Amino acid sequence: MDNPTLAKPYVIGLDMGGTNSVFGIVDQRGNIVAQTAISTKAYPDINDYVAAAVTALQPIIEEVGGIEKIKAMGIGAPNGNYYNGTIEYAANLVWEGVVPIGKLFQEALGIPCRVTNDANAAALGEMTYGVARGMKNFIMITLGTGVGSGIVVDGKVVYGCDGFAGELGHAIYDRSPEARQCGCGRKGCLETYTSATGVARTARLLLEQSTAPSPLRDLDPEKITSYDVFLAAEKGDQLAKDIFEYTGSILGKACANYALFSSPEAFVFFGGLTKAGHYIMDPIEKAYNEEILNIYKGKAKILVSSLKGSEAAVLGASALGWED
Amino acid sequence: MDNPTLAKPYVIGLDMGGTNSVFGIVDQRGNIVAQTAISTKAYPDINDYVAAAVTALQPIIEEVGGIEKIKAMGIGAPNGNYYNGTIEYAANLVWEGVVPIGKLFQEALGIPCRVTNDANAAALGEMTYGVARGMKNFIMITLGTGVGSGIVVDGKVVYGCDGFAGELGHAIYDRSPEARQCGCGRKGCLETYTSATGVARTARLLLEQSTAPSPLRDLDPEKITSYDVFLAAEKGDQLAKDIFEYTGSILGKACANYALFSSPEAFVFFGGLTKAGHYIMDPIEKAYNEEILNIYKGKAKILVSSLKGSEAAVLGASALGWED
Repeated sequence: MDNPTLAKPYVIGLDMGGTNSVFGIVDQRGNIVAQTAISTKAYPDINDYVAAAVTALQPIIEEVGGIEKIKAMGIGAPNGNYYNGTIEYAANLVWEGVVPIGKLFQEALGIPCRVTNDANAAALGEMTYGVARGMKNFIMITLGTGVGSGIVVDGKVVYGCDGFAGELGHAIYDRSPEARQCGCGRKGCLETYTSATGVARTARLLLEQSTAPSPLRDLDPEKITSYDVFLAAEKGDQLAKDIFEYTGSILGKACANYALFSSPEAFVFFGGLTKAGHYIMDPIEKAYNEEILNIYKGKAKILVSSLKGSEAAVLGASALGWED
Repeated sequence: MDNPTLAKPYVIGLDMGGTNSVFGIVDQRGNIVAQTAISTKAYPDINDYVAAAVTALQPIIEEVGGIEKIKAMGIGAPNGNYYNGTIEYAANLVWEGVVPIGKLFQEALGIPCRVTNDANAAALGEMTYGVARGMKNFIMITLGTGVGSGIVVDGKVVYGCDGFAGELGHAIYDRSPEARQCGCGRKGCLETYTSATGVARTARLLLEQSTAPSPLRDLDPEKITSYDVFLAAEKGDQLAKDIFEYTGSILGKACANYALFSSPEAFVFFGGLTKAGHYIMDPIEKAYNEEILNIYKGKAKILVSSLKGSEAAVLGASALGWED
C-alpha cells in the first residue's frame, strides 16, 4: 500500500494505555503495515520508556525503509495535551506531573511528534480513515470505562484555550437530587449513565426495581458488563433491552444538547457499548430525533465507528502524524 | 480616526431588527463615523428595502470619501446564515422564506457583503473592538428577549454544517417534570430561565411563593422587567436580589457545561440583563466556579460586553466586514 507520490508515505501511531503501549506504522489509507508493543508501567523513568520504545520501533522502521520514510509520529495518551506535546497529571500512568513526551520522542526519532488525548485521537482516526472521512463538523463520543469526546469544527479538533476542550462525558445531564455520583466529585455527569460502569449501575438498578425474570440475575451484580447485557438482549430478555433503552435515550438527549453548539453532520460512537448494535443505537437515534431543536432536525447522522476496535486507537494516534 | 495605512479604512455594519434597520460606517478601532437608519417593515418587497437602504447610505458613504473607501459590508440579522449570505425563515421579519440579502447588497453597492445572526455578530464585535480582543476561544451569551450565543473557537465563529451552530439558549437545562415550557415547543431550555421573559417568570414565581414585602408587588406582574427588578435590588429589596441570584446561578451552571465543549478563555455577556451588574454577575461567577470541572477551574473569565449597548449591534455586524 506504499503511496509512490509521497516521499514519506508512513506515520507512526502510539496508543498509550496505563498497562501497554502499542505502536503501529500506518499508511495513508489506514493500513497498519507493522506493529510492536512495550509495557507502559514497567518504566517508572520516562527516559527509559522512550529508550525501550525506540528499541522496539527500530526493526519495524527498518521494515518500511527507514526513518526517512516516516513523516511524523502521533501519540494518543490519557491527558495528552496537543498544544504542549505533554501528558499532564494522568492518574492511570506511572509518571507524575507533566511529561514532555512529544519532545522526548521527537529528539529520539528525529521526526515531528504530536500528542493528544484518546478521544481526540479517535476523532482524527475517523476523519482520516473512518466514517467521518470528508466531514468538517462532527462529534466523536467514546463509550468506555468513562465517556470521552473529540469535537471537530471546520475540519479541526477543538482544543480550546488550554488543550483540554471536549470533555462532554462530564456535561451534567441530571440536576435532580437523585443524580448519580461521578468520579470527578460532582453529580449527574453523562458518564455516570452511559459509560461501561454507568450501564452496570443501570443494570443493578433495574434488576432491583423489578422482579421480572432475566438471565442477568444469574450473574454477580457487581460484575455485570455491557456485553453480558447484550447477550441477554440477544436471548430476548426485556430487562436487558430496557437497560440499553435507558442508556441510549440519555445519550440521544445529551447529544441533542451538544448539537446546539456546533451543528455537526454526525455523531460518531466508538467503544465497547456500540457492540450492542441496534439495542443501543436505535434508542440513541430515537431520543435524539425527538429532542433535537427544530432547525437541526434531520441534519446529523448517528454513526458507529468503522475502524476495527483493536486498531482504532493506533490509527487515531497515527492520524495526528499527517497534520501539516 | 482614519487609518492612513489602509486604502479602504471603513466597513459598513447593518443591524437589522424587525422594526428598524440601523446602518453605521465604522473604522478599524470601532468608531461609528457616520450612521443612518430606515424602517425594516415598511418594505414588504426586499428589492424596495435594498433600494431604500442604498438611498439612505449614499450621503454617509460620500461623507467618508465614497464607496472605494469601504472594504465590505456586514449584516447582523435574525436567522442570518453566514454560509449562504441569506436570511432564512425569520419569524420577526416581513419577508418570508429565504432572502438572499447578501447578494442583493453586494450587487447594489459593489462591495463584498457578509451575513450572520445577531449573537454571532455580537461575538465578532467583542473580538474585533471589545473585551474579547486578542482572544481565540470564547463564548458570547446574549441575554435579550431570548438567549443567543456566538461561539468562537480558534479565532473563528463556529457555524457548523449548516450555518446555524451556537444556539445555547435552547440547551435543555432542566429535565424535571416542572421544567418551564419554551417557545421552541420543548421544555427546560436555558432561555426560559435567563432571558428577559425568563426573569419576569421568575419574578412572578418568587412573588407568589413568598409573602415578603417588595416594591415589585406594586407593579403589574405581567409587565415586570429585569430593569424593575434591578431598581428594586438597588433599594435593598431581598426578593429582587433573590431573582437575580436564581437567574445567575442557572446561567453559571449552564456555562460550566458549555466550557466542557470548547474550554474558552472567557464567557462574555451582553444584553439588558447585564445592566443589573453585580446582582446578576456575582451569582453567575459563583455558580460557575462551584460547578466547573476541576481541570478547567480558574481558566475562563466571566466578562460583560464593553461595547455601548446602542452601538454594539452595528459594531458587531460591521466586524464581519473586516474578514478576509
